[in-house]
Amino acid sequence: MQTEIRSPFLDAARGGCPTRRPVWILRQAGRYLPEYREIRERLSFLELCHSPESAAEVTLQPVDRFDLDAAILFTDLLIPLIPMGMALRYEPGPVLERTVGSIEDVRALRVPAPEADLAPMLATVELVRKRLSQEKALIGIVGAPFTMACYMIEGRGSKAWDKTRSMMHRDPETFTALLDRIEECLTPLVRALVAHGCDAVQIFDSWASVLGAEDYAKFCAGRTDGLLRTARDAGAVAINYVNGAGQHLESIARSCAHVAAVDWRRSLETVRAATPDHLTLQGNLDPTALFASEETLRARVRSVCEAAGDRPHIFNLGHGILPDTDPRAVEILVDELRSLDRE
Amino acid sequence: MQTEIRSPFLDAARGGCPTRRPVWILRQAGRYLPEYREIRERLSFLELCHSPESAAEVTLQPVDRFDLDAAILFTDLLIPLIPMGMALRYEPGPVLERTVGSIEDVRALRVPAPEADLAPMLATVELVRKRLSQEKALIGIVGAPFTMACYMIEGRGSKAWDKTRSMMHRDPETFTALLDRIEECLTPLVRALVAHGCDAVQIFDSWASVLGAEDYAKFCAGRTDGLLRTARDAGAVAINYVNGAGQHLESIARSCAHVAAVDWRRSLETVRAATPDHLTLQGNLDPTALFASEETLRARVRSVCEAAGDRPHIFNLGHGILPDTDPRAVEILVDELRSLDRE
Repeated sequence: MQTEIRSPFLDAARGGCPTRRPVWILRQAGRYLPEYREIRERLSFLELCHSPESAAEVTLQPVDRFDLDAAILFTDLLIPLIPMGMALRYEPGPVLERTVGSIEDVRALRVPAPEADLAPMLATVELVRKRLSQEKALIGIVGAPFTMACYMIEGRGSKAWDKTRSMMHRDPETFTALLDRIEECLTPLVRALVAHGCDAVQIFDSWASVLGAEDYAKFCAGRTDGLLRTARDAGAVAINYVNGAGQHLESIARSCAHVAAVDWRRSLETVRAATPDHLTLQGNLDPTALFASEETLRARVRSVCEAAGDRPHIFNLGHGILPDTDPRAVEILVDELRSLDRE
Repeated sequence: MQTEIRSPFLDAARGGCPTRRPVWILRQAGRYLPEYREIRERLSFLELCHSPESAAEVTLQPVDRFDLDAAILFTDLLIPLIPMGMALRYEPGPVLERTVGSIEDVRALRVPAPEADLAPMLATVELVRKRLSQEKALIGIVGAPFTMACYMIEGRGSKAWDKTRSMMHRDPETFTALLDRIEECLTPLVRALVAHGCDAVQIFDSWASVLGAEDYAKFCAGRTDGLLRTARDAGAVAINYVNGAGQHLESIARSCAHVAAVDWRRSLETVRAATPDHLTLQGNLDPTALFASEETLRARVRSVCEAAGDRPHIFNLGHGILPDTDPRAVEILVDELRSLDRE
């Protein structure tokens, strides 16, 4: 008889009873780790994304170092833009060579064939899945249509994405055509990620925070949900990361995701009260809390768990870990979770 | 017998029945107006802030052009940093010559004597108040301690103010000492603005949006409230602008302000439901809605008014007007409000 292998991440994500509270860290494969910086001395960010062997290595580094419950694929949300016909570089923030402004620009976007166009990403997925133990999940990442549209309309990062919101109001037809086209372009990628070994796909609506609840519900939530549905139908766990979750609780409650991943600005207690019981919560420690004293950090970790209450919960930060974080703080965070498990 | 002069802005702010729904526009004196750009061809931003005659002129330009109900003093929230001992320049965003990182830096901050140190600002207030009709209010602006601290800690603008939040967690003693010192430095300015002719003072917590509700309540809301209380005690209307209002409703409900000014991301209906009846609401059209078609813009203006319900309401944007806005859109906005008044 074979022993059943239990995955704390997948158990929690699907509403079961995990053997321990699962934890992973947004941007866990990154600059705060000396072993990551060592690889980046040899490879640029884009080269690393396109090198399956090295990308798999940095994907696995934090899982091994901290005994985390999930690996998150090392790549960037904007990589699929390249086969869509929008070249980009990192300086270090992303800069696109051209932008989308008209319906012709939207029509010119090419739907990628992931096996051919995003082969290094899928090869990385296969390598990681092969090397990762079965108790640990592999999460693929894909940008939500609105968040991708922000970069495509403005060409580089922005505080409040004024041009994007202006286009939404000035030319809602082109704006919605763009969102639809992005959803169409990313749907095959979601399927391919799952087919090649991802156990979960997290759809990142990193910039939903700049929209009012009504505009988000009207223009964006349904398209994000399309990608979540694709992940779900492919048999993977669907994770809906909405930055600015506090203002979009109604949309989050209606989504078909297994897991709602939320930013640090609203207590999980609030999110819990506003969403159905079957929705697993993921988050939401403020990444800057990792700079606090050990005592404060441990208290903060506990209070996030308390706010999650009896809802299935995957511990995480509410936003990406900062490059100058001391890895020792992540050790303390994980240790505190493990001691809570024992209580 | 003298006819009583009624001010729609002051009536609404104090919970009375205004003769019309008052309106003004965040950053109404600015680059979207050709008459402003003309003056800026001759004067740099800092020169303009320091030239009472010209600053008064640009303060009055939008009030005259659109028949708005309030003038907002043309200056910058960071100008008081100069007499506090922190020189700065605009490129065009503010860049401080040094930053605050230690308790010694906090102690070195000087409390300005506004009459001597901020004379051009107070002279501008006097000129504007003299030229403005009595039905129109003059609003002074002051940065909330947290928002000022963001710039003082980081030295220039930031998306999420990670360094500031890190300091809050790493060194809460220095962080709170800084907030206290800023409150102390700005209190005389609030009093002086009122003494020289401001009818209202708006305290801007422009970056409260990056904090979770508990951290904001613990560290920041009380210090903002100190400045609001000073304005109130001096006889002026106190306006509490909190960007990220949706996550800080409890703090807003507890504040001593007459008016809660809110950003565009949460419907006034939500804010109304969570705050006491005596609190006047100000806001909150998305500034990018001014790029919509006339029909959509008019519908948006109406829906903001509907969301305010029977609560006293001062119409405004939820954030500053964008430099590439067509002044004609502001005309449409005001016209729609006036036609609503007649219904």
